[in-house]
Amino acid sequence: MNASILIKKKRDGFSLSNAEWKFLLEGYIKNEIPDYQISALLMATYFRSMSDDEMFSFTDLMLNSGSVLNLSNINGIKVDKHSTGGVGDKISLLLAPIVAACGVFVPMISGRGLGHTGGTLDKLEAIPGFRTNLSIEEYKNVLEKVGVVLIGQTSEIAPADKKLYSLRDVTATVECIPLIAGSIMSKKLAEGMDALVLDVKVGSGAFMKNYDDAKLLAQTLVAVGKKYNKKTIAFLTNMNEPIGNMIGNWFEIVESVLCLKGKIVPDVLELTLTLGGMMVFLGGKAKNFEEGKLLCQNVIDNGKAYQKFLEIVEAQGGDVNSIENLNEYPKSKFSAMVTANGDGFISKIESLEIGYASLLLGAGRATIEDKIDPKAGIILMKKVGDKVIKGEYIATIFTDKENILEEVKIKIQNAYTVSVSPPEKEKLILEIIE
Amino acid sequence: MNASILIKKKRDGFSLSNAEWKFLLEGYIKNEIPDYQISALLMATYFRSMSDDEMFSFTDLMLNSGSVLNLSNINGIKVDKHSTGGVGDKISLLLAPIVAACGVFVPMISGRGLGHTGGTLDKLEAIPGFRTNLSIEEYKNVLEKVGVVLIGQTSEIAPADKKLYSLRDVTATVECIPLIAGSIMSKKLAEGMDALVLDVKVGSGAFMKNYDDAKLLAQTLVAVGKKYNKKTIAFLTNMNEPIGNMIGNWFEIVESVLCLKGKIVPDVLELTLTLGGMMVFLGGKAKNFEEGKLLCQNVIDNGKAYQKFLEIVEAQGGDVNSIENLNEYPKSKFSAMVTANGDGFISKIESLEIGYASLLLGAGRATIEDKIDPKAGIILMKKVGDKVIKGEYIATIFTDKENILEEVKIKIQNAYTVSVSPPEKEKLILEIIE
Repeated sequence: MNASILIKKKRDGFSLSNAEWKFLLEGYIKNEIPDYQISALLMATYFRSMSDDEMFSFTDLMLNSGSVLNLSNINGIKVDKHSTGGVGDKISLLLAPIVAACGVFVPMISGRGLGHTGGTLDKLEAIPGFRTNLSIEEYKNVLEKVGVVLIGQTSEIAPADKKLYSLRDVTATVECIPLIAGSIMSKKLAEGMDALVLDVKVGSGAFMKNYDDAKLLAQTLVAVGKKYNKKTIAFLTNMNEPIGNMIGNWFEIVESVLCLKGKIVPDVLELTLTLGGMMVFLGGKAKNFEEGKLLCQNVIDNGKAYQKFLEIVEAQGGDVNSIENLNEYPKSKFSAMVTANGDGFISKIESLEIGYASLLLGAGRATIEDKIDPKAGIILMKKVGDKVIKGEYIATIFTDKENILEEVKIKIQNAYTVSVSPPEKEKLILEIIE
Repeated sequence: MNASILIKKKRDGFSLSNAEWKFLLEGYIKNEIPDYQISALLMATYFRSMSDDEMFSFTDLMLNSGSVLNLSNINGIKVDKHSTGGVGDKISLLLAPIVAACGVFVPMISGRGLGHTGGTLDKLEAIPGFRTNLSIEEYKNVLEKVGVVLIGQTSEIAPADKKLYSLRDVTATVECIPLIAGSIMSKKLAEGMDALVLDVKVGSGAFMKNYDDAKLLAQTLVAVGKKYNKKTIAFLTNMNEPIGNMIGNWFEIVESVLCLKGKIVPDVLELTLTLGGMMVFLGGKAKNFEEGKLLCQNVIDNGKAYQKFLEIVEAQGGDVNSIENLNEYPKSKFSAMVTANGDGFISKIESLEIGYASLLLGAGRATIEDKIDPKAGIILMKKVGDKVIKGEYIATIFTDKENILEEVKIKIQNAYTVSVSPPEKEKLILEIIE
């Protein structure tokens, strides 16, 4: 076999066999096939996509490039959740303790933020002392003891995906459904879960801007899950405005803790109960999806979810005191208010722009090497549908970088659209793909 | 500017500006932009092509990545020829002396063979002592003294093209019209020519398998030539059977010399007079194309073309005796006859297969590092339209590699199609693009 002939085959629209993908990916991992050939292959795949068989082969090769964890000694159904990433998306921080408090095991391998989206790991690490780099042994122990664990992709988990993702990131080959599906599912299948609930975001603040692409991705992810006999259900959810009111790593911890303690943030709560309800149902602790939602609401109301969150923080080395006394956290050096530039109703908040504003404040990474400021972020005081008058405060920004305050204020003001008449309410949960 | 954003822009079908191409190509040459980003860009360009403006920018950047030779001290019109490459295509070997014998200066920068096609440089180097790696100074001196010179692409000529071509070769991004056009024209424009005749091959043995692609390439090449105020004319010519009867480096020297001395090989002669006639006309030595053809025939008939060939060989260090005594050349260790596998008429000879057979015999290169055996090759004894009976000899093969004789015999036999009725004669010169 010869890499350039295989690239040509893919370029010309033919499917590659399992043996051919194996040759390419194994050669790449062993540095026998150079990255310049793989990046050409990835771009050809972007244009030609993959057949279902190819996509299954691809996922399987990535999965088996590293360890596949065996959690069979833990007696219970293990359910995980994955989101394709959005702005202000702190739902994993709520789901992990809520679903675990309902008695379902939650082994969760999460990612870091890049570009305009945040990452669960970065948010957790805003908690002083919180460790996300547990060893496989620690991971199993925490899961067994606490019923839930949150870590990052270790070097043992799907190393082919790790190497390939770095290359995709700098060669404009991220936005390709079979590559995305293979990347997500190889990691999830490696972590030892039995069932998976997917939150596929669609809209201006999501990787998938249009509905058809998002639906195809959701269907693809569900098909891979089924192939491995894992119960897999995807929700298509609206990402046309940021989720919740707080954006930034520590701020999202704060908003999650407040919600776990009963504060009602409508979109955060709706997403949490929907995804959590399904996780509890798939985890065998509820007769149906509706009952799953009720159980999730119960563990919030009776304080068990919050207690579970504290247990997680403690088990993973975090400072429980920082959670119990949210106000004692260090503050940003500078803050500024953003005002409405017209009278009327907020009809739109461009989440992509809010995501980039948050990045500029220090809450995100432009490149994988960038260091994050956990304190930095944005509090949105107005959301879509709210009435405003010109000059009224719509958001507050927090940063240690004085020189970018004005730029970010304008960016956020421009991200808001103020209209004369109230906007039609968009649905948050768009479709379920089973 | 950022390479991955520019790759994405090209991937999404937008044109890149001159400044953007400059950023990418200059960054690549300086090793500031890695090859894995450029190969993704090339694959995106394969799928999205380039606008005319982009293609002109691209060619200009490649041209100006090295020296642009100034031949203005040589008093006369300089005309070159380029072929997109075929099987048995030794026409440059005839044109160079013929057109120079007509009084037109011919500065010719040629390439090496790769895959199924041969290269003029490799054929010339089959002549003992012949040097194709002249310095720029030697190049100018030989051109001035002899009226013609044949060299390879030096490191001063379009180095960006050289680096990019190596990458395209291993990433399945060769067959892309604007990339081909930029590569050909940047080299031709750098060598100092005033006018150019192009032989764009179309058919099973050519890079361009279909007519529309070949025509688009021809039009693109002519448009670039005109942009630089160079008289540029392209012929679309048939590459559905090998050109002439001999394939292999020394064999093609032999067939060229025989033709220069008056032997009539119909397709070789027709191509030579057509391309040569146009070169002589563009070089200002004939009133029109038809007169140009007649002048070319004259210098063959009166021996001046053959004398000019000997002058070239002498000026570039070659052994003139080897040309004057063709039979004294070393012989291959093994030879074998290929027989017809049916009665009737030869209706087709798959030139691609003949090209690969020649490569297997030792006459070509599978990779750029392979060493060529100049003696190896094929003599075709039957061509399209010829009558054959089963078992009759159709070709002879020559090689030093005994172990591949059987395989190559079968390959060549399979490349021939024998039909009951005589085939319709295909035209050799298909179209002129001005």
